[in-house]
Amino acid sequence: MTIPQQVLEKMWANDHFSQWLDLKIDAITEGVCRLHFIVRKEMLNGHQTVHGGILFSAADSAFAFACNSHGRLAVGLEVSISYTKSAQQGEILTVEAQEVYLGNKTSVYDVKIRNEQAEVVAVFKGTAYRTSKNVLG
Amino acid sequence: MTIPQQVLEKMWANDHFSQWLDLKIDAITEGVCRLHFIVRKEMLNGHQTVHGGILFSAADSAFAFACNSHGRLAVGLEVSISYTKSAQQGEILTVEAQEVYLGNKTSVYDVKIRNEQAEVVAVFKGTAYRTSKNVLG
Amino acid sequence: MTIPQQVLEKMWANDHFSQWLDLKIDAITEGVCRLHFIVRKEMLNGHQTVHGGILFSAADSAFAFACNSHGRLAVGLEVSISYTKSAQQGEILTVEAQEVYLGNKTSVYDVKIRNEQAEVVAVFKGTAYRTSKNVLG
Amino acid sequence: MTIPQQVLEKMWANDHFSQWLDLKIDAITEGVCRLHFIVRKEMLNGHQTVHGGILFSAADSAFAFACNSHGRLAVGLEVSISYTKSAQQGEILTVEAQEVYLGNKTSVYDVKIRNEQAEVVAVFKGTAYRTSKNVLG
Repeated sequence: MTIPQQVLEKMWANDHFSQWLDLKIDAITEGVCRLHFIVRKEMLNGHQTVHGGILFSAADSAFAFACNSHGRLAVGLEVSISYTKSAQQGEILTVEAQEVYLGNKTSVYDVKIRNEQAEVVAVFKGTAYRTSKNVLG
Repeated sequence: MTIPQQVLEKMWANDHFSQWLDLKIDAITEGVCRLHFIVRKEMLNGHQTVHGGILFSAADSAFAFACNSHGRLAVGLEVSISYTKSAQQGEILTVEAQEVYLGNKTSVYDVKIRNEQAEVVAVFKGTAYRTSKNVLG
Repeated sequence: MTIPQQVLEKMWANDHFSQWLDLKIDAITEGVCRLHFIVRKEMLNGHQTVHGGILFSAADSAFAFACNSHGRLAVGLEVSISYTKSAQQGEILTVEAQEVYLGNKTSVYDVKIRNEQAEVVAVFKGTAYRTSKNVLG
Repeated sequence: MTIPQQVLEKMWANDHFSQWLDLKIDAITEGVCRLHFIVRKEMLNGHQTVHGGILFSAADSAFAFACNSHGRLAVGLEVSISYTKSAQQGEILTVEAQEVYLGNKTSVYDVKIRNEQAEVVAVFKGTAYRTSKNVLG
């Protein structure tokens, strides 16, 4: 297994919320994570569309797997998300996190969520703080 | 019941994700929502602390209840969150959303999440788009 | 002249601050603007590096030209910027704004600032509100 | 002079862009900076209102003075700004930066810009990285 795969495996085992979201990882390499999930009933908000927190959370998990993929333990510092389209129960959403900057102390990621028509549902930008610890111990 | 209370009641009935988070509403008035919740095991991330998406989601729900409290249907446009302190399973977190701007088309909210020691766990700023529809129909 | 060029010409004539920044437009098409500028002494902050507000402003101008390029008058609603590298007096910085979402009421842009070594200096994400007015009158 | 005042004096001497903005400092204490400035012609954008970059820059300077006020050299990592009202040439705008979190490695500030009618013009949230260096050397 590559380092990104080992990191993902170790993080996933403890990541109860990503498990609850039932995220399916499609690709994990250095600085990149792609995954998808299905919008379930318990993910809806008071307007009967997907809760903004669910979109955020799926993007945040992809961001976390991407920013830890180098093996150095990284934690989210700041995130901004723009919602562009709503999504309904039953839709399959794809999330792609892409590294745009990798520094010694911080790194930055663009994350896009798209629906099955490839329309952008949310645009997420995350900044991580890179600690000096190793994820794999 | 006041309008903010009626709006909350109607939104809550459909808001399956806020129910799953088990958010407890402490106060709801025009432009303000205060709530709390307990960090459960299924809310943890791969580093065994609360998932950033959970903090975001609780703040996002408080933001949604606050920005819809005037009766006009409002949807989140853009949110930024800064994480300042992690939280563990079992901790009680308090979330307070406060309106800082109410315009005709948009409104802006500051949301703070604090732990039982009143330390700031996350700082959230949300911008909502105010539609011309009424939440109460 | 194309519509994006006409819009740019009209906006530029009034845009005293972009003139002060001495931004040089390299490309303007629908949803895209690329420009560059040189860091001057009066653009420095108290740590003797380029002021964050200058980086933001150059990105914000590229964002404004890109989001107005379709001819509909658009105004910035929300912006988030991450600083990844500092820049010094005399450096040439390139700014590229790229549309990632174009909706009826809002649109979203990714903007990157890079130095002469193609290193990312700042990452900017902007959301615009699209009015029903026409820039060209 | 207090430490915040000494830090401000030292930073100001080199801060050519804040000088160009002609920011007038009204208060500087630990974690807080309040200032005002007048919108000049060269601060306008292509829609003949104040350029978003000017609002950002004034807020960013207040943020910089506030986050360096403890004496430890701090640099901006991530900022998000929401525009709520435009401003015209000749208006006096007041900027207030307030610390909401002070940690060992990072700190977070809320900054509000208001016009003479005390209406909110922009809401800014900034996260700083605190280095181990001292501003006063």
